Order: sequence, then structure tokens, then C-alpha cells
Amino acid sequence: MSDRLDILSLNRFDPEDATRGQPGLGELLKRREATLNAATMLFYRRPIQVVRAEGVWMIDPTGRRYLDLYNNVAVVGHCHPHVVGAVAGQLALLNTNTRYLHDLVITYAERLLATFPQGLSNVLFTCTGSESNDCAVRLARAFTGGTGFIVTGNAYHGNTAAVAELSPASFRNWGSPPHVRTVPIPDRGMRNTGEAGDQFAAAVAASIDDLRRRGIRLAGLLVDTILSSDGIFPEPAGFLAPAARLVQQAGGVVIADEVQAGFGRTGDALWGFLRHDLAPDIVTLGKPMGNGYPMGGVVTRPEIIECLSAQAGYFNTFGGSPVAAAAGLAVLDVLDRENLVEKTRDVGAFLKSQMVELSRRYPAMSEVRGAGLFLGIEWHHPKTGAPDPELTGWMIEALRERGMLTGAAGALGNVIKIRPPLCFSAADADLFLEALEAALEERFPNRSERNGATGSATQVLPGTTVAHPADSP
Amino acid sequence: MSDRLDILSLNRFDPEDATRGQPGLGELLKRREATLNAATMLFYRRPIQVVRAEGVWMIDPTGRRYLDLYNNVAVVGHCHPHVVGAVAGQLALLNTNTRYLHDLVITYAERLLATFPQGLSNVLFTCTGSESNDCAVRLARAFTGGTGFIVTGNAYHGNTAAVAELSPASFRNWGSPPHVRTVPIPDRGMRNTGEAGDQFAAAVAASIDDLRRRGIRLAGLLVDTILSSDGIFPEPAGFLAPAARLVQQAGGVVIADEVQAGFGRTGDALWGFLRHDLAPDIVTLGKPMGNGYPMGGVVTRPEIIECLSAQAGYFNTFGGSPVAAAAGLAVLDVLDRENLVEKTRDVGAFLKSQMVELSRRYPAMSEVRGAGLFLGIEWHHPKTGAPDPELTGWMIEALRERGMLTGAAGALGNVIKIRPPLCFSAADADLFLEALEAALEERFPNRSERNGATGSATQVLPGTTVAHPADSP
Repeated sequence: MSDRLDILSLNRFDPEDATRGQPGLGELLKRREATLNAATMLFYRRPIQVVRAEGVWMIDPTGRRYLDLYNNVAVVGHCHPHVVGAVAGQLALLNTNTRYLHDLVITYAERLLATFPQGLSNVLFTCTGSESNDCAVRLARAFTGGTGFIVTGNAYHGNTAAVAELSPASFRNWGSPPHVRTVPIPDRGMRNTGEAGDQFAAAVAASIDDLRRRGIRLAGLLVDTILSSDGIFPEPAGFLAPAARLVQQAGGVVIADEVQAGFGRTGDALWGFLRHDLAPDIVTLGKPMGNGYPMGGVVTRPEIIECLSAQAGYFNTFGGSPVAAAAGLAVLDVLDRENLVEKTRDVGAFLKSQMVELSRRYPAMSEVRGAGLFLGIEWHHPKTGAPDPELTGWMIEALRERGMLTGAAGALGNVIKIRPPLCFSAADADLFLEALEAALEERFPNRSERNGATGSATQVLPGTTVAHPADSP
Repeated sequence: MSDRLDILSLNRFDPEDATRGQPGLGELLKRREATLNAATMLFYRRPIQVVRAEGVWMIDPTGRRYLDLYNNVAVVGHCHPHVVGAVAGQLALLNTNTRYLHDLVITYAERLLATFPQGLSNVLFTCTGSESNDCAVRLARAFTGGTGFIVTGNAYHGNTAAVAELSPASFRNWGSPPHVRTVPIPDRGMRNTGEAGDQFAAAVAASIDDLRRRGIRLAGLLVDTILSSDGIFPEPAGFLAPAARLVQQAGGVVIADEVQAGFGRTGDALWGFLRHDLAPDIVTLGKPMGNGYPMGGVVTRPEIIECLSAQAGYFNTFGGSPVAAAAGLAVLDVLDRENLVEKTRDVGAFLKSQMVELSRRYPAMSEVRGAGLFLGIEWHHPKTGAPDPELTGWMIEALRERGMLTGAAGALGNVIKIRPPLCFSAADADLFLEALEAALEERFPNRSERNGATGSATQVLPGTTVAHPADSP
């Protein structure tokens, strides 16, 4: 569910339910609330205590293994020995900043930039996707002289003050700031008939006009190239491009937020913007970049950096350290060596096709979307046809009880987000499909129900007291 | 020098000079400029390539050792084996986010919070000091309903859009945003007569009044408790307190930025605000927190967090990971085990007293300031009495040539900043003092010159082409 819903659910967190079958958790939950505050959300009605992880598995103190279908940060697999070794080795040798010369950070920059189209030849290193998007906002403002931004309707771009203003998904009540315009995702009909690009471009054009009318100069379009928090909308590939061209024609920059879609996630290419045939001016990187080592980056043209540096300095203490470079290089190594982009495409296509099959039998699965290993299942009430966040939450909990970790997405909280480490195999997909089918059978026990009726004997938990946050991680 | 000066110096970077005596660097510098952009500054006219570091030493590819008097990030010493071991061990086990339960992050939060006054009982984990200050800005806005901030005249609080607006030191031409007021540091006379607190409070009171007059509601005072980028002004301890009380009486919050002064740096206490007897509402942490592992934190009262979370979610993907917790715990372990706060007080006092002695012989050293191992030497032209950034830059380069790494601070770039890892010993101080005296003798070769004349035979390098950035790291 969106953050809006997490927050609403906060007050109704029920520790008794949380510790059901996990009595040891009670004390930990109390200590956590006393220090990190209850506002620091936990996943799942019965939160999971994780003590170790490897590959696609997260493991609790009793040794129970959970299949991780959620965490894109561990992009090459939890605790991948090549990445752990590279980071540990460099930590013991040197961990300092970019104001000393070090060849590793330059080698990493070269290797990373070689994956981008010509022109996008410079990188500024940061520590997080939020810092990357924040830096992109500063670059866009400096380069264009504008302040107006266009984002999608339920965008999430990070946690800093400037990017939170561009993240409707973060707010309980989104009060669109004067310099921000939101555009809707093309509707299903348009997406299926190939008119999505025109519809999206028309919405962006209207926003450009509206900003101009109000005397707000355009800075740019900031867009997550898989539209994760909006509900995962990768198709049709290319539909973002006409709008992007309009923005550039109007003097704005296009910022491709690759924090979610980047590093091979979509299976089609290393970067989501390439799928869409975009020519972004700025690309932002984060989450998977160091397989969990905190690092991010902003890739752009030299003249854009120079516009900012003519006004102000930009320095990031931890960004681009030799340790971050070692982590980043190791991630690129593994993506290559283990053929993960290709594997992602194939395993993702298999998983998607199987879920599409399943959705034919269960009309509540109203749409299965995705590219590579970033998939979404949208849920509607099988009788009323209304978006069904309650069912979505129920399914997420039912999957968790079966050892499958997923989360929610979308403005209405009615999309299950599937985004495992890219070492996820077809055999892992089978395990998930089995659990998904079992959960569906539990929820819809009778054949007739599978054609429209909700089950009454199912364990529908009272209320939606649990966080399935859509924003991050 | 301040960032203002780095930027000015950018265009005049001279690669020939940079590679003098270090021919291998030319290729590396070219590759660096092509990828990281020339805007990513390097320290020193002849940049240093560092390949490893241990304790207080940084080591170049030829094996030459440099005494690090600059890097507060490696607070317990570069590559401290206890921290490296803790991080490497946890990396191999689990690296995930706070939406899963993990005892290490709670244990760390408890241990960290136990060092704060009662009431400051919650912590939000971030990845950098910039993220911490940015989060503090969001908290202050949500809690007070205000937007107006007061900062010191050459403050540096980080690199995000929101905190850059509160960082005059970052800008080439600081155009004070409408919601920001800057206050000057009390002058030397006031600092010596004990009226600094009144003078500082009067400036803050005037800012509060001015914001009120313009209809801008006060959010708070954001202050680095050692005033690093302003030029390092720790004395007299307590001088920040009256102003802070005024801010709180006027409905604003006091944010103590401990990114520089925290973790024992001042030798008097773990936190700089304790030296000043402040009762901050929010405390921000960064740089030294993980001895180089990217982590930060915001310590505050629960009701302040709850004001933000009533409006919007706050989630930080990498913040508070088990690896960050392991790093943070290991740093606290070493600070304790090696008695580093006490040692910092003693070694710092020794170094300061010796530099004060030296300043009696060299009037160009117009003031020696500091607390613990955060010391500043201010330089004025010995004849004209004017602030002397040229001499300051010359001394920094002369020290670097003698294997001593320092940097600059202050709005005028005329303060040498000394801020070594806290394992810095009295013997290390002796090495530095010897080099400092030798550099002074080189610059002022005749006894008479030591009493006022600048040397003419000294190697004054043409122009100020080199960065000695005051902001960070």
C-alpha cells in the first residue's frame, strides 16, 4: 500500500497479533518502538526477524527460510561473496573521499559510464537514491533556471525535503506544491491500444502549459522508468518518449530515475530509460548500485554539472569512496559473469506468463504487468470490480505465511510488487507460483468463487493494520 | 578556503604543477576529469594519490606516509581492525533495511541514545550528515509550522537542496534565500571578555524579529556546535546557549549539528552541544558515526517525529541497516576501550598549548583556537594585519610537502583546520609541530621577518590555484 495507508494503519498496530507464533518478538518490538519510534514501519502483520540472508533467501532465528521476492537492493543476491569480499578487502585497505586521488573510483566511473549513451559522460557519486534525485533537482534548477517539475501522480523519488515535494506517494494528504504538476499514468485501454504515449504526452503538455500560464519556469520531468510506486507500468515500452521530447523542447530537462529500474532489473537493458528509448539529460542511480553498500550516482552531461558548480560547490563525503567503488565494480562483475540481465529477462518472462495463466482462472487478478523481474499483480474485487487493497493486503500476508516476501504498490494499494534479487531462478519462480496458487485457493475455495465470489471461510484478518509500504525499499 | 574560493580556483588548476615529482599522476588526472568532471575538487596543488591508510597515516603508491591531521571521518583511526571486522562480518551475514526486525539496530539505538540527555529518546537513521540535516529541516518545519531558519554566516550543513540553502559556505555568491537569516560569529574581543553569548544572542534576536516582521514563521536555529566552516570557534564554551533559549522561547527548535563536533571530537564530551550546555530539540549526526561506513542519524523527541509522520512517511533504505549498526557499535566500542575522548582532551590541549607558544614567535599566527582535536590557526599578514588566505594556502601546501595533511576553514579562507583521527598521539603532535615550525622558518627565515615581514625568498606559488575546501569532508 502507499505510504498514505501505512500512516493511517500506524495507530492500529496490534502487538498481540504481531507476536502470534513468535513470542520472542514482543520484547524486541517494545525496545524498537522506544528507540526508533513507531513511525519506523515494519513489514507484515507478523513482522519478520531476519538474522541472515543468502542469494534469494532471508532466514529467521528459528532457521525458517523466506523467499525474497521484494528486495531489489540485493540485486545480485543477498551477501554475494564476490561483493562482500571486495568491500571487506577495500575497507581494510583504505576508505576515504574523492578529494584524494584513487584509481578505483575512476575505473568504476569509466566502467559505469560505458553503459550509458554518448554524451552522458560524467558521474557525481552520492550515497543514496534520495541524494541522487536531490542532486538532480539542483542540477536541473541550475541548468534551466527553472523550478517547475512534472512527476507522475503517485511518484516516489526519495526522502529529502526537495524530492519529498516531488513524491505524492509519501504524503498522507498530498498538497501539490505550487511548482509541481502531476500527470496520470495512461489508462489500461490506452496502454493496450498503443495510444499510451500520446495520452501521457498530452498530460505532460497540459502541465507545461499550466506552469507557463502561472509564470513558473519549467525545470524538468522527473520520472521513474518503471513507475514503481504508481503501480508498475512498464508497457508499452516507449510510451514515455513523446512526453520527454516535449519537455526538452520546452526547455526542461528529463531526469530518468533508475533507482528502481536500473542495473538490469527490467531484463531488456541495463537501464529502464533504454527500454523507453529516452534520451534523458540526467540519470539517477541508487538502491542496487552497491548490492546494499550505501551508494548512488547522478550521470549527466558535463555542461549540466558545470552550471551547478558555477553557483555552488557539490561535495559528498562518502560518495565515490574506494569502498563504494569496490562495491560498485563487484556488482557490475557479477551482473556480467552470471549473465543476470539475460537471466532476468527469461525468468521474468516465465514468471509473468505463468501469472497471466493464473489470472485467467482468478478474475480478482485483474492485470499482471511487468518487465524482467519487476512485476505487478493488480487486484480488483471479483464481484464489484473495484480496486481491492484489502484483498491485496490479505494476499501479501497469506504469501508471507507461506514464506514468500512481497509488498504493495500503487496509489490505491492494490498492486502486489514482485522484485526479487536477479539471481532468482525459474525453480524459485515455481515455488512462488505454487504458494500464490495455494493462497488463491484458500481465498477462493470454490470453483464458483473463482469466477467472481469472495470466499467467506477465509482468514480475513480484521482491518488493514499492517504496512505494505509502496515507496521503498 | 571556503568553497567559494575552490570554485574560483577551478579554472586555474595547473596539471603541470599537479604532477611535479609525481609523473604517474598525469594520466589518472585526465581520466578523472573526463569522468568525475573537474568540478570534483582535489586537495592540494600537488594532489595525493592514496592507496592505503592505517591509524593516523595515509600512504601513497611509493610508500610515502602522510600524517592525517584532517580526516574526522576515520574518527577511531583509518581502517581500525575492530570496525573493519565488525562491518565485514555483518556484510557476510545480512545487510537489509529497518522494515525487518533486527536486534543489532535496536541495540545500537539504545547505546547511542544513552549518551544523550533524557527526552532525546528517539533516533532516525540516515546515510549521511546531509541527509540528517535535511531530515532535521523537515522535522523542524513539521513541528513548528514555520519555514524560517537562522544559521551562522559561513555555515556549511550539507549538500541537499534544502540544506544547501542553509549553507552560505557552499555558494560562490550567497544570495540569502528569503526564509534564511545569517548571524555573525562573535568577534575576538567579545570572545575574550566573555560577552560572546550576549553578542550572539543579540544577533539571533534581531533575526527572529526580522523574520517576524516579514511574516515568516520561525522554524529554528541550525548550528554546528564547533562552527567549523565559520573558522572553528569553540570558545567560550556556553556562548551558544542564550541564543538557543531565545529561539525556543520564540517557538523555534534548536538543531545541534554534530556532524563535525560529535563523537568525542572536542575532548570535553561526546557531543559539542553538551560543552555549550545547550538543550537542543534535534541533534544531527554524520561523518564519524561509522568510521567511514556511510551512516548518519537524527536524535530527537518522539513528538517531533510524530509531527512529521502525521504528514508524510520517512524511510531510508540503507539507514539503520544491520551493517550500519555493526559499524556504529564498533565505533562506540573503540571510543570506550581506547579512552579516546579523554585522550583527545589531553593531546588536544598539549597541541594547542604548543601552537600558542609558536604563535608568540610568529605574529602571522594571529589566533590559535580549538577544543580537543578540533583546532584552528588563524593567519593574518604580519605587517598589514589583514586576513591572509594566501599565506594560509602557502602554509597548507608547505605542510603537505612535509607530509602533514591539513585544510582550510573560515569565510576568508585564512584558518588552518586541524582535525585528525582521535587516536592521534602526543608523539604525532610533536611530528606536526616540528613540520609547522620548519614551514614557518622557511616562510619567515629572518628573526626580523618573524616579527612582521614576509619572506621574499620563499617558494610562494603563483596564484591560489588549489583547493583547500572548508566545507567537507
